[in-house]
Amino acid sequence: MKIEAIDLFYIALPEITRTADGTQDSLLVRVKTDNGLEGWGECDASPLVSMAAYVMPMSHSNIINIREALLGETINSPADVIRLRNRAGEYGLDVQQIDHAVAGADIAMWDVLGKHLGEPVWKLIGHDTSYKKLPYASVLFGDNPETTRAIAKSIIARKFRAAKFGWGPIGRGTLQDDIELVQAARDGLGNETKLMVDAGVVWGDNVDEAYERAVAFSSLGVTWLEEPLRTEEINAYRELSDKIKANNISIGIAGGEGADFFRSADDMMVNAGLDFVQIDVGRIGGITEAKRVADRAKDLGIQYVNHTFKSHLSIAASVHVFAGYEEFNLTEYPAGGSPLILGLTEPTGVFRDSQGFIKASDSPGLGVEVNNDAIRQYQRIIKIEVDGQVLFESENP
Amino acid sequence: MKIEAIDLFYIALPEITRTADGTQDSLLVRVKTDNGLEGWGECDASPLVSMAAYVMPMSHSNIINIREALLGETINSPADVIRLRNRAGEYGLDVQQIDHAVAGADIAMWDVLGKHLGEPVWKLIGHDTSYKKLPYASVLFGDNPETTRAIAKSIIARKFRAAKFGWGPIGRGTLQDDIELVQAARDGLGNETKLMVDAGVVWGDNVDEAYERAVAFSSLGVTWLEEPLRTEEINAYRELSDKIKANNISIGIAGGEGADFFRSADDMMVNAGLDFVQIDVGRIGGITEAKRVADRAKDLGIQYVNHTFKSHLSIAASVHVFAGYEEFNLTEYPAGGSPLILGLTEPTGVFRDSQGFIKASDSPGLGVEVNNDAIRQYQRIIKIEVDGQVLFESENP
Repeated sequence: MKIEAIDLFYIALPEITRTADGTQDSLLVRVKTDNGLEGWGECDASPLVSMAAYVMPMSHSNIINIREALLGETINSPADVIRLRNRAGEYGLDVQQIDHAVAGADIAMWDVLGKHLGEPVWKLIGHDTSYKKLPYASVLFGDNPETTRAIAKSIIARKFRAAKFGWGPIGRGTLQDDIELVQAARDGLGNETKLMVDAGVVWGDNVDEAYERAVAFSSLGVTWLEEPLRTEEINAYRELSDKIKANNISIGIAGGEGADFFRSADDMMVNAGLDFVQIDVGRIGGITEAKRVADRAKDLGIQYVNHTFKSHLSIAASVHVFAGYEEFNLTEYPAGGSPLILGLTEPTGVFRDSQGFIKASDSPGLGVEVNNDAIRQYQRIIKIEVDGQVLFESENP
Repeated sequence: MKIEAIDLFYIALPEITRTADGTQDSLLVRVKTDNGLEGWGECDASPLVSMAAYVMPMSHSNIINIREALLGETINSPADVIRLRNRAGEYGLDVQQIDHAVAGADIAMWDVLGKHLGEPVWKLIGHDTSYKKLPYASVLFGDNPETTRAIAKSIIARKFRAAKFGWGPIGRGTLQDDIELVQAARDGLGNETKLMVDAGVVWGDNVDEAYERAVAFSSLGVTWLEEPLRTEEINAYRELSDKIKANNISIGIAGGEGADFFRSADDMMVNAGLDFVQIDVGRIGGITEAKRVADRAKDLGIQYVNHTFKSHLSIAASVHVFAGYEEFNLTEYPAGGSPLILGLTEPTGVFRDSQGFIKASDSPGLGVEVNNDAIRQYQRIIKIEVDGQVLFESENP
């Protein structure tokens, strides 16, 4: 079959707040083929900047847009998807945003190929089985210990067996403030529930501040401390990791969501001393590249975890990537209330079984359907003109 | 003084060809301050994608546009520029394009600060002196040996003492084809002229193909083989570099233009075995970040070289970065005929002295002025609307 259309849908809540909540807007990408099929993907990135990478005018042979790279191309096999993903990368070699942007098209190509061949994506990318994963509710800290405790209790009420708290006030006050915040989360969850903490790169390159927290949080049974430092600070990460191990502190270091391409993730795995590598399939260029990282993590003995703070379309894409690796048994699961989390795929989604686990679907493609009514409800209409000519205009899904 | 306006100008030749010629379009950024000064910077990146990073709607606390980060902010000292560059980076933490885009604003902030303080940029960023550099004419290979030889002769006629040939047919045919191409360049230049070869990442991750060329080109007196492999292929680069050194092949390996942020450049320097690191000030986030790489290169004993394929505004910005490091004595100098090379700053520019050298200007700021007539002549008028409201519209400079 041939790719006949690549359509872009920018959706957003009516009001966007200045919080670290990535479920306030999104960019969906639809790939249509000439045999009447369609596949869907989602980017975790600025929608407008990523759209521009699909439609930008050519600058030279290394700045050519994604539509130009993919439209009219043949896609009948997994090798075709990989070839086309790489083709888009070559056409956009000098476009920094290329990985964030092409992620949506890559995911959509795997989805449509799965529908065409009647196979789930996890099988197409080389897995033998789809193992169950324990989802952790991924939420933001409350503004203080009290609200954080209440959030933790609500997670228990929803029968999650693991939770991650992040961003908000952590690292903005004293060490003691941070301990009280994490203690409140632990109190609300009880001792049976896995707890992870996401510091949102708040300590920059300051190993001592991060290490103090790692020690304190380990005694509260925190599984991992995530992004204590900026993605770039590989040497500081290594120092932190070495110090934790040398002192037998029982806590893992997690990071990697800021890795926009394979080598950046590999650099973090090899040189930063991570215990968990967290990859966002909607940033790192899609399922093709995320799978490369999962394979490499397996070789290195580092646990791959998805980073996901978007819709159930992204959750589905994320879980297919590492479906067949039984030891990669945790999965981030956005648990907030945004209508852009479940709404975009309602009534389909990636739902927990009676034991609280999820797994990648055995249905063809990603195994979720996109709800066009939700797109219509939340769509932002974008129009881009160059010298008075329309380069792009949003269409009704 | 305070930043009062950040203006964006997308300029392009009437026809863009599908060649590796980056002088066919550009994005200029003008920073205006409330005391009537203005500074200019240039991005080496897709203009439309980078513009979007200046004006995109907020997605959440880590996707906020560059204008929002900088407008109204105070800028009186070098520390202010660095603080504001970092602020834009934090506002745009989850925007992959941020480094390519903010480069223009960063360069413009250094320029306007220099004008305000009456100092050249090289002094503001910590250099004591501005040393002369030998510019190499940077051109594309001809389509065959004959046209390549003619190009080489024209470079000699223009009294360049060094030249780099790149892209075009290299690596697209056999080893023998490549040798004939480089031999033609050498013949045209004569033996007294430095010759560098840019392979434009053509051998991907194939160390053997790259090594064969390195051996062959070394006997033609080639100073360096540039980008034989893709930027991501750090391990392959290391293997190639080790093999060249183990066999005493007299040729350097150069790379780094694909490094979009400091760590990516550092990864290449530390882990890829480069002899020359080539940094594009218009991609890596501006003068602030490029200077960090130059300092690091000095510490590591690797030669820093600018990558520049834009206007004299970019040449000026590039040379200020490493002005004070005498041992970094080579500089890339676009030598093609595009009106976007000299035209944008005409009649000012970075010109060769009677010995053929250039150096960073001692005038306040970058030392070049932007020619508004050229902008008017080549400007592309961009209009971006969201839900019927104008988000951005190009203005007359």
